[in-house]
Amino acid sequence: MKEKDLISVIKNTLNSNYIGDDCAYLKDLDIVITQDSLVEGVHFSLDFITPYQLGYKSVMVNISDISASGAEPKYLTIALSMPKKVTDKNFVEEFYKGAKSACPNGVEIVGGDITGADKVFISVCAIGKTQGRNISSRSNAKIGYKVVVKGEHGTSGAGLKLLLNREKSENKFTKAHLMPKAQVEFGRQIGESVKEEYAMMDTSDGLMDALSTIANNSGVLLDIDFDKVPIDNDIKQFSNWKELVLFGGEDYGIVAVIPARYHTDGTVIGTVKEGLGVDLKIDCNSFHYSQKDVEEKIFNHFTNGD
Amino acid sequence: MKEKDLISVIKNTLNSNYIGDDCAYLKDLDIVITQDSLVEGVHFSLDFITPYQLGYKSVMVNISDISASGAEPKYLTIALSMPKKVTDKNFVEEFYKGAKSACPNGVEIVGGDITGADKVFISVCAIGKTQGRNISSRSNAKIGYKVVVKGEHGTSGAGLKLLLNREKSENKFTKAHLMPKAQVEFGRQIGESVKEEYAMMDTSDGLMDALSTIANNSGVLLDIDFDKVPIDNDIKQFSNWKELVLFGGEDYGIVAVIPARYHTDGTVIGTVKEGLGVDLKIDCNSFHYSQKDVEEKIFNHFTNGD
Repeated sequence: MKEKDLISVIKNTLNSNYIGDDCAYLKDLDIVITQDSLVEGVHFSLDFITPYQLGYKSVMVNISDISASGAEPKYLTIALSMPKKVTDKNFVEEFYKGAKSACPNGVEIVGGDITGADKVFISVCAIGKTQGRNISSRSNAKIGYKVVVKGEHGTSGAGLKLLLNREKSENKFTKAHLMPKAQVEFGRQIGESVKEEYAMMDTSDGLMDALSTIANNSGVLLDIDFDKVPIDNDIKQFSNWKELVLFGGEDYGIVAVIPARYHTDGTVIGTVKEGLGVDLKIDCNSFHYSQKDVEEKIFNHFTNGD
Repeated sequence: MKEKDLISVIKNTLNSNYIGDDCAYLKDLDIVITQDSLVEGVHFSLDFITPYQLGYKSVMVNISDISASGAEPKYLTIALSMPKKVTDKNFVEEFYKGAKSACPNGVEIVGGDITGADKVFISVCAIGKTQGRNISSRSNAKIGYKVVVKGEHGTSGAGLKLLLNREKSENKFTKAHLMPKAQVEFGRQIGESVKEEYAMMDTSDGLMDALSTIANNSGVLLDIDFDKVPIDNDIKQFSNWKELVLFGGEDYGIVAVIPARYHTDGTVIGTVKEGLGVDLKIDCNSFHYSQKDVEEKIFNHFTNGD
């Protein structure tokens, strides 16, 4: 089964209104909460990433989800499981140094768990304070809203490609993959300013995934101009750069779908129209992507690879 | 390195006051938070436990930690990683049915993560509301306080022994191991009534571990009468039953160290005296256990087994 189908099974079994967005919004506590895991051999290889970078990235991917909810990141707990061979003081110390370095000002790691395992497994839980802000939902995009994106896309996917090709020297692409930076300021800007319901998601699973998920959960069509998507021009050296920009993933940018009247420091890449899915204008052509089209393109941990 | 040494490394690296108790107390949010992982091959074997029981137990061990803090369990997130071979609808559905069945009234599963992995890995994060109660700390035991225990001990360890001996028929021992019950009512009773600082811990790593941890973190001596520890008398059929009661672990009972004037429905098994460690009266003899003595006896995921 695909990840999205498994999430449907979970949602039906729990009969819960909470499951769906990356963060659960706990109104009585004025917080949001999220949890993301990184598994050796699925999400990373110790051949490519140092313990410091791994600690950093584990935290950053969760900070990214909190920021994309519109809340303010505040507390983290970290569960780290690892084989005996890496349980030396140095691994744990470097991992936690990296984790701490990824915490924006005012964010603290307050607990967690440490156990043995066959492979390194990390699961981080993050809490954000709402601070009176509106919290986003992927089902809140409305016709007439604009689609804003923050962060360059494709860079992380290009970095992964280089790492898989055993590129040893660090460069901006490999760095973007190993040490991504969450768009904390942008998430705060949107959360603090937008007074209406709005949609926001990070692009951890790719730009097209975020666009398609928001479109289909909101029951609208996102009309997107590919040429407006912010990229690092050097990415054009990769033959499949357009695919990397759209589907590469792990850029930890943010897509916000908000009323047109708000000015942000993101880039407007499209508008919301009547219909369903994503219309992508690229090289003077327009392609329609249904939810199914996008899902078939996206790396799926349960169906691709070994 | 031992788990406790690794926790020291983490505490030093983060330079944090939060790390130490099972739950972190976030005063500005009036909540406590905890995270516990269960790893296939380390904490459980799919030969012995069903997906339903696994979901149940994953939740219950975290509910236990919240209850032992004195707070009221409220919200959970669950990260589940698993190999392709078990990613059928049935596994996920049964796991979540079990998880839901372990939630006391008023507790909700609100999110999490699902990914692939070589083995089944579960990490659960739980949040409890303080509701104006005093929150426990393992360093708050004071001279003159009494030591109260709730829950029978050794039963789960006996169950594990039967399972490892390939005992197929379900009985009260295997059930105690596979489907433990957290002492939610007792935790609530203590949290609601005790107005002074107090110590409380669950006995997930064994009764002696909880006693020794509280004693050494508080800088006091716990004077314990083994004969008073509540047990199921049928445990005496096991040749090493006393060891199971003291060190078996996974009973998810609670040890509370509170001022003598409070009446509870737990069993008083000792008192707090000047000194350090645990004095255990057993069969008319008295044995002293230092922190080191206890640690050497306790199963350690990083040093024992493979």
